[in-house]
Amino acid sequence: MSRPPLVFAAGVFYPGGEHITGWRSGADASSYLDLDYWTRFAQTAESGRFATLFLADELYVWDRFRSGIEHGTNVRLEPFTLLSALSQLTTKIGLAATVSTTYNEPYHVARKLASLDHLSHGRAAWNLVTSASDEEARNFGRDTHLDHGIRYERGAEFVDVVNGLWDGWDDDAFVFDKSSGRYADRSKLHVLEHRGEHFAVRGPLNIPRPVQGHPPLFQAGASEAGRALAGRTADAVFTLGGGSLASGQKLYDDYKRRALAAGRGADDLKVLPWFSPIIGDTEADAEERFRELAELTPERVQVDLLAHYLGVDLGERDVDETFTFDFDHEGFNQSKSGYKAIADLLAQRPYTLRELAWEVLRRRFTVGTPDTLAAHLIERYENGAADGFILMAPTLPDTLTRFVEHIVPRLTDHGIYPGEYAGDTLRENLGLARPAGRYAA
Amino acid sequence: MSRPPLVFAAGVFYPGGEHITGWRSGADASSYLDLDYWTRFAQTAESGRFATLFLADELYVWDRFRSGIEHGTNVRLEPFTLLSALSQLTTKIGLAATVSTTYNEPYHVARKLASLDHLSHGRAAWNLVTSASDEEARNFGRDTHLDHGIRYERGAEFVDVVNGLWDGWDDDAFVFDKSSGRYADRSKLHVLEHRGEHFAVRGPLNIPRPVQGHPPLFQAGASEAGRALAGRTADAVFTLGGGSLASGQKLYDDYKRRALAAGRGADDLKVLPWFSPIIGDTEADAEERFRELAELTPERVQVDLLAHYLGVDLGERDVDETFTFDFDHEGFNQSKSGYKAIADLLAQRPYTLRELAWEVLRRRFTVGTPDTLAAHLIERYENGAADGFILMAPTLPDTLTRFVEHIVPRLTDHGIYPGEYAGDTLRENLGLARPAGRYAA
Repeated sequence: MSRPPLVFAAGVFYPGGEHITGWRSGADASSYLDLDYWTRFAQTAESGRFATLFLADELYVWDRFRSGIEHGTNVRLEPFTLLSALSQLTTKIGLAATVSTTYNEPYHVARKLASLDHLSHGRAAWNLVTSASDEEARNFGRDTHLDHGIRYERGAEFVDVVNGLWDGWDDDAFVFDKSSGRYADRSKLHVLEHRGEHFAVRGPLNIPRPVQGHPPLFQAGASEAGRALAGRTADAVFTLGGGSLASGQKLYDDYKRRALAAGRGADDLKVLPWFSPIIGDTEADAEERFRELAELTPERVQVDLLAHYLGVDLGERDVDETFTFDFDHEGFNQSKSGYKAIADLLAQRPYTLRELAWEVLRRRFTVGTPDTLAAHLIERYENGAADGFILMAPTLPDTLTRFVEHIVPRLTDHGIYPGEYAGDTLRENLGLARPAGRYAA
Repeated sequence: MSRPPLVFAAGVFYPGGEHITGWRSGADASSYLDLDYWTRFAQTAESGRFATLFLADELYVWDRFRSGIEHGTNVRLEPFTLLSALSQLTTKIGLAATVSTTYNEPYHVARKLASLDHLSHGRAAWNLVTSASDEEARNFGRDTHLDHGIRYERGAEFVDVVNGLWDGWDDDAFVFDKSSGRYADRSKLHVLEHRGEHFAVRGPLNIPRPVQGHPPLFQAGASEAGRALAGRTADAVFTLGGGSLASGQKLYDDYKRRALAAGRGADDLKVLPWFSPIIGDTEADAEERFRELAELTPERVQVDLLAHYLGVDLGERDVDETFTFDFDHEGFNQSKSGYKAIADLLAQRPYTLRELAWEVLRRRFTVGTPDTLAAHLIERYENGAADGFILMAPTLPDTLTRFVEHIVPRLTDHGIYPGEYAGDTLRENLGLARPAGRYAA
């Protein structure tokens, strides 16, 4: 069997692009609340045959530091309402919403995803996150967020409940027979009656089984618990990109092994590294574009971002002194992979705080020309480090437009990227089979 | 000051229409999951200058009795995803989603409504319900639903938190100044820090203040606790229609008095009785249409519906015997107003179970011709019993279409119904002022 073609997801967290000050370079930020802005984004991605849109999300405003309010862009439209509106202005591209399993109820989530899947004729997907900040906890009745292990336990049970609710109605449970007056076939309904550690959900769900059976499930957890859950349940994982080919291959193999160990096929779990390119006409132009963006980012924001990743306040530190930090990998309770990446950097050589903040910002992006960037993607794909990529355009709409105009054709010409959509549903366009219901004969 | 013009909401609970077997008379029920069906519904209502759509909702499948699965139509699209999709296919009509304050978190709800309000340029609204069935409780981790008093306490606090979150950002808090890099003005942010009996929500909300300030709040609670909450907080109440003019006036006056007692204006709380017409070309044709629909409803469904309203199982009762029932108004914990209406019926004369089930079904509908139905609406509006009506079309799409074609012109000709929309936002079209933020100077 030949290798499934390369796939792309078009992701967005900050509305102006993945770079925290990307908003200063593109469309006017007042347009972020208007659907026209997002329609252009979605339609551009669709013109580049992206398998899916992906809306990253958090449930709070980043106001831990003053710079987060003054300069941050962390207000945005809610993913389901936005994607549902976009479902009527697109025809092929997937619509993936981020869902926190810590601050949601599985009944609501199963229902919203099923509804979006019906409205889009099979293009819904979800990205499971477990939420890792105290700020989010405080918007939902808690003072601190749940411990890492508990969050993933709850997340695993959440997935099980959602899948069970979707499977509660067989695909052909609804009869809709006007002449006899029979609406549904009771024998094709399976009441869930779930009673677990974290949830008690009886069911049935009040919407028929989704078009895709189970809308695809994406995850990004890189910790042991996160990888274990992804190996068992995810259809695609978003991984950190940007490291060496060898580290990418190692990560790729790890996820594939976990899928196989869970009794699934290696192709059932797509590995999609994060890719956030600064696209220049020449290498020098690309570096210049990065520098321009970085210089638009107040140093306070750069330092506060680093402080955020480390879970501390660095407000009193001198930015010109050599930066030392006492890492506590066991006790740290936000994103463990980002934390470790910073520890790895500091293990290589000394940095001042200013240098480290800059370097951490720098490492989120891959800087190059269409030729070098396409070559990077091809290398990762052809050497077992990626099934595709999640494009987090640092600036919008221009990076996405440039990517579709200049990089996509190189991948198509190379024969690894499709010239048209494979089908009408996201599962078809990801090369994933439609799952039968758990009660299906 | 002249009386504000008559307003209509186009409501829907069962996708095929308010009559439980309306689905047997109209569009094919398989179309209920497709947006085309809903687009026709919304556009028809918009062509009749309805102020708003209104999606009634529950969080369970009515499977208490076997007939609920076999013959019921209680699966449907989720309100926010459906309304958000419709926001792009309509331009003037409001988009009201039902929200259970018992099984939701105020942060999520404030955010979704704000998002829908921005996407629709000021047309979002919500209908607060407190959820009154054990089936719903069992989908959200409880065995039985909360007591009536607690539900309304929680509902009141929920409204307060949602309004507080919306007001957290002043209307002009976002600066979006590319040249200085200032995104927001910290002095125009007010962190909620709510700590109450039922919720602890810090804020701020991660989306700017809604276009309408506060998207309008609808309620339908008819109990003392429900009316008290509506008097203080609702912009419109949906009341039971169908009784005498005098009873409608009494109810109307009661709500208006409560609004005045809460320091609001009488016009700040619209009273919209429920109106579910069977529209015939003649009186005989209308009665025939009612009978045809009723006869499509299996007797088992009629009896089970009555049993549902009474909170018991009537499966063993002989349908031909005189029906007796021991009402317990204090202890009953579902919809108290529906319960009382049945008690009132039985107090008038004896009924067999079959007769009572038929009569309870019959009383949901007003049967007449365009002339008599328009006269009914005019009488209620002109004599202080209604500011408008919520049309619950028994069959869709045809009752709505007939209403817009035959009844709306009579109301416009009579000079009480607008010939065009007053504005672009729902608040404008309901004649409601836009509220200033609670922190505004």
